[in-house]
Amino acid sequence: MTPENGTAPNDRNVEVASAPAAPMRWDGWGDPARAESLPFAVRSLLPLVVGRVRRPPAGPVLEDVHVEATALTPDDIAAFTALLGAQHVRTDAESRIRHAGGRSTPDLLRRRQTAQSAPDAVLQPAGHDEVAACLRIATERGLAVIPFGGGTSVVGALEPERGAHRGVVSLDLGRMSGLLQYDAVSAEAVLAAGTSGPEAERLLAGHGMELGHYPQSFRYATIGGFAAARSSGQNSAGYGRFDAMVTGIRVATPTGDLELGRAPGSAAGPDLIRLFLGSEGIFGVITEVRVRVHPVPAERLMESWSFPDFATGAAALRAVAQHGGGPTVIRLSDETETGVSLAQVGRIGRALAKGASAVTVFEGDDVAGRRARTAELLQGAGGTSLGEGAAEDWLRTRFDGPYLRDALLDAGVFCETLETATTWSRLPALREAVTAAIKDGFSEVGRKAFVMCHVSHVYPTGASLYFTVLAPLGSDPLTAWAGVKHRVGDAIMAAGGTISHHHAVGRDHAPWLSEEIGETGIRILAAVKRELDPHGVMNPGAVLGPATPAPVSTKA
Amino acid sequence: MTPENGTAPNDRNVEVASAPAAPMRWDGWGDPARAESLPFAVRSLLPLVVGRVRRPPAGPVLEDVHVEATALTPDDIAAFTALLGAQHVRTDAESRIRHAGGRSTPDLLRRRQTAQSAPDAVLQPAGHDEVAACLRIATERGLAVIPFGGGTSVVGALEPERGAHRGVVSLDLGRMSGLLQYDAVSAEAVLAAGTSGPEAERLLAGHGMELGHYPQSFRYATIGGFAAARSSGQNSAGYGRFDAMVTGIRVATPTGDLELGRAPGSAAGPDLIRLFLGSEGIFGVITEVRVRVHPVPAERLMESWSFPDFATGAAALRAVAQHGGGPTVIRLSDETETGVSLAQVGRIGRALAKGASAVTVFEGDDVAGRRARTAELLQGAGGTSLGEGAAEDWLRTRFDGPYLRDALLDAGVFCETLETATTWSRLPALREAVTAAIKDGFSEVGRKAFVMCHVSHVYPTGASLYFTVLAPLGSDPLTAWAGVKHRVGDAIMAAGGTISHHHAVGRDHAPWLSEEIGETGIRILAAVKRELDPHGVMNPGAVLGPATPAPVSTKA
Repeated sequence: MTPENGTAPNDRNVEVASAPAAPMRWDGWGDPARAESLPFAVRSLLPLVVGRVRRPPAGPVLEDVHVEATALTPDDIAAFTALLGAQHVRTDAESRIRHAGGRSTPDLLRRRQTAQSAPDAVLQPAGHDEVAACLRIATERGLAVIPFGGGTSVVGALEPERGAHRGVVSLDLGRMSGLLQYDAVSAEAVLAAGTSGPEAERLLAGHGMELGHYPQSFRYATIGGFAAARSSGQNSAGYGRFDAMVTGIRVATPTGDLELGRAPGSAAGPDLIRLFLGSEGIFGVITEVRVRVHPVPAERLMESWSFPDFATGAAALRAVAQHGGGPTVIRLSDETETGVSLAQVGRIGRALAKGASAVTVFEGDDVAGRRARTAELLQGAGGTSLGEGAAEDWLRTRFDGPYLRDALLDAGVFCETLETATTWSRLPALREAVTAAIKDGFSEVGRKAFVMCHVSHVYPTGASLYFTVLAPLGSDPLTAWAGVKHRVGDAIMAAGGTISHHHAVGRDHAPWLSEEIGETGIRILAAVKRELDPHGVMNPGAVLGPATPAPVSTKA
Repeated sequence: MTPENGTAPNDRNVEVASAPAAPMRWDGWGDPARAESLPFAVRSLLPLVVGRVRRPPAGPVLEDVHVEATALTPDDIAAFTALLGAQHVRTDAESRIRHAGGRSTPDLLRRRQTAQSAPDAVLQPAGHDEVAACLRIATERGLAVIPFGGGTSVVGALEPERGAHRGVVSLDLGRMSGLLQYDAVSAEAVLAAGTSGPEAERLLAGHGMELGHYPQSFRYATIGGFAAARSSGQNSAGYGRFDAMVTGIRVATPTGDLELGRAPGSAAGPDLIRLFLGSEGIFGVITEVRVRVHPVPAERLMESWSFPDFATGAAALRAVAQHGGGPTVIRLSDETETGVSLAQVGRIGRALAKGASAVTVFEGDDVAGRRARTAELLQGAGGTSLGEGAAEDWLRTRFDGPYLRDALLDAGVFCETLETATTWSRLPALREAVTAAIKDGFSEVGRKAFVMCHVSHVYPTGASLYFTVLAPLGSDPLTAWAGVKHRVGDAIMAAGGTISHHHAVGRDHAPWLSEEIGETGIRILAAVKRELDPHGVMNPGAVLGPATPAPVSTKA
């Protein structure tokens, strides 16, 4: 990113001091100090929704987990050490286990096993040039590379898969954190790819600005991960998907670098930034991201709504998306999710537990006007205003879902989420098809599933659907879930949905990508990968699935 | 595009009847009946701005233009005729001359020569399948293919360049016109790629909807051309660039087809639609485009503004772009353009001829509120409201610029436009650098240039700059302009601009693309082209420049 405009508070390749967050639990979500048991309200509800469950045996403590000895040779380690320093080439068991996958429910279930697969080493480059050098060394030596940001993938993008190579390293971008440039006039900031969500917001707040990107993984996920996975945050109605926030990127690939993004609008050929957004490390590593920022909102208004049913609520959200009421957040829970949410806050039995509830939040300029226009559209479409209460509840607890999942798993309840999107006209049928696929899949293995759904991202032409699934954990939850996911993927394709709206492809969704983009689409991605990564070291198996082995170097 | 949703008024491969527009002048812009001489106001102003000019000799009439005999063999013609029918394989001189280029000023100057280059034939497929078959035949026979929509390219994208091949055909999509699907719930329409701007709006108006994409080429340009060139229209502040309107595409390439776009938001790998937007026919042919549409606006408000100078006006537009006043159109003319515009409407000498003038237009929902919020921002930034007058003048004449250019050329005045974009912080220096490059370039060949500039597309992080150049035509205007364009391209790159905001790359801007996207970026585009078009028949020389000849078939 050219530095002539705006301030450049840090040299580009220098590690930026940042407030260290406590490392995430190795075998669950988030802050270890916050691990909690199941709230009473949830515990009392469980028998109604999934029947009786049995508490499973506890998983191993970290010290008891077995991983194989590293496949890296002393020569490999010496090459990386000469570049990064010994303290940034980790081969100890704990470092390797902490980089052994993401945070999907299958990931967490695998952490409950004693023998686990793990990358052969963890590399910690300090900046773009060190990343580029790591990729060259890995290519020369025939080692696969898995880029690692916050470790929050829920689609298997961080599996330590070596493909046809003799070893695999995790490339942890955690040292690459900081605000590298800030341009107040253009309202743009360049952030190092390893900067976490909270750290990015802390740094921008120093200039009175914010990014406003709040996916549920916000507290741990990184700027580079948001870009590589095409993330979408809870404020997407107001500030857009992460795709829309990105105005430039810097990328290191095994065979060359890129700096893209000279103007907010361009017709200088295809927009190559979009080829790296969603590439999940299969072409190279996004090292810096230029983003559009906006002033920290001075005002926030919110309002909750109730609709007689999901279909009425969805039509109301569509009216807002197509006529521009202007909410920052707009979400609609289906009848099932509405019932459980109200139960959780102790409101069972109130009349409003029926129907579908929605939340709207307004931040920034003209909040009162936007709330009024949105309210007029929602009311005109059959909604009833419930005031601020439920919206405040949602806002307060919006990052806490993953903690509840850990407590449910401990109690013997399988809990996972999945998501898709489609046009407004296909949305009702897609919701029914996915719900049925989940229930049928669990029913086939003799379990009752409880399925909740919400719409949390709206566009003029369509919307996302986000499902939360509860079921008894049973004896082999990994196999049971694999069967369910297979049915769901097929159901999404048949109903005209996308295989992912914001979780990305990783390895879990790769089997459906050829149906989504066609064989010619797959050929395009494979051709780009061959050009940039001719030996196939970058994240093998992600996005494109297990490929024909590329020629690999035999140097060891 | 899957047909299960929305109405499908026409079979996909059937020619759709459409109101035929009068064919464009072969040697100038637009409706031959509207060709006009120079208005008195302009004629009286010319000596002041470019000095004395001499009327050049008139160009040839169509019948006197010489083109070489077609390079196609009887076998080639028989193969295309078997597919399309004899009436849709044109080798007559008039058809070939009418497809011999676009509508840049150099294109028009070349039409004033007696000997002209032209494609060897014009093919007129009726739909996607015929396009795909044409590409296969051309590949087998070693013939280059130039996709042709409205013929309005101003960057040399339609040059009849054969590259390493023995012949070149123009693939005219004019028969592929129509609304193929309409989904009222999702507010989406599928249009055949050859549908012209006015025809698309006529068809959508039948459903009460519009696309709202109004580039200056609107009356002749096509939906496929808007997509292939990443067009941006005058209403971009309200409805976005054409990029943003596209929700799906169907593409034929020499080696396979694509249908892309299952959902308005997706994280299913990189967004491949964006690889075809801006591809200008080098990978294949966009045959169908799915677009977001909106209700025909019931209301329109407008307001004109005056600022003390361009810098103040640009800062005011920035405030509107960053704080969301919500105009549908917002434009700012610099002091020079403001002075001439006022002169043209006979207002010389009024106090307001000084400074920089702006136009705002509001259409759709909440127009009064949006005008009030925009006015507050513009006034707060130093603007003075001038009421509706000048905005109405602009709206009435906004598609007429190209007619004036023909009259100027006839009178001996060179007239051309060019454009770029960058961030707000770089905008003032970019405007100065481009203006200086134009003036210096003409000065070097002893001519005085008059340069006007306006901002017509704004984003939160930056804006476009659009320049209009007048100069004496002189004895060799093509060589003189080539020298100026070379200086301008270099100046844009040095000042951090993009080589094109909405005219695209074509052949004219190809020399600067490697500086814009880097050598690695060029390698990516070349790899995709090799994969989809292994013999390099698609629009050779466009975007990527003259390439190393690809292996070509020798069958004849």
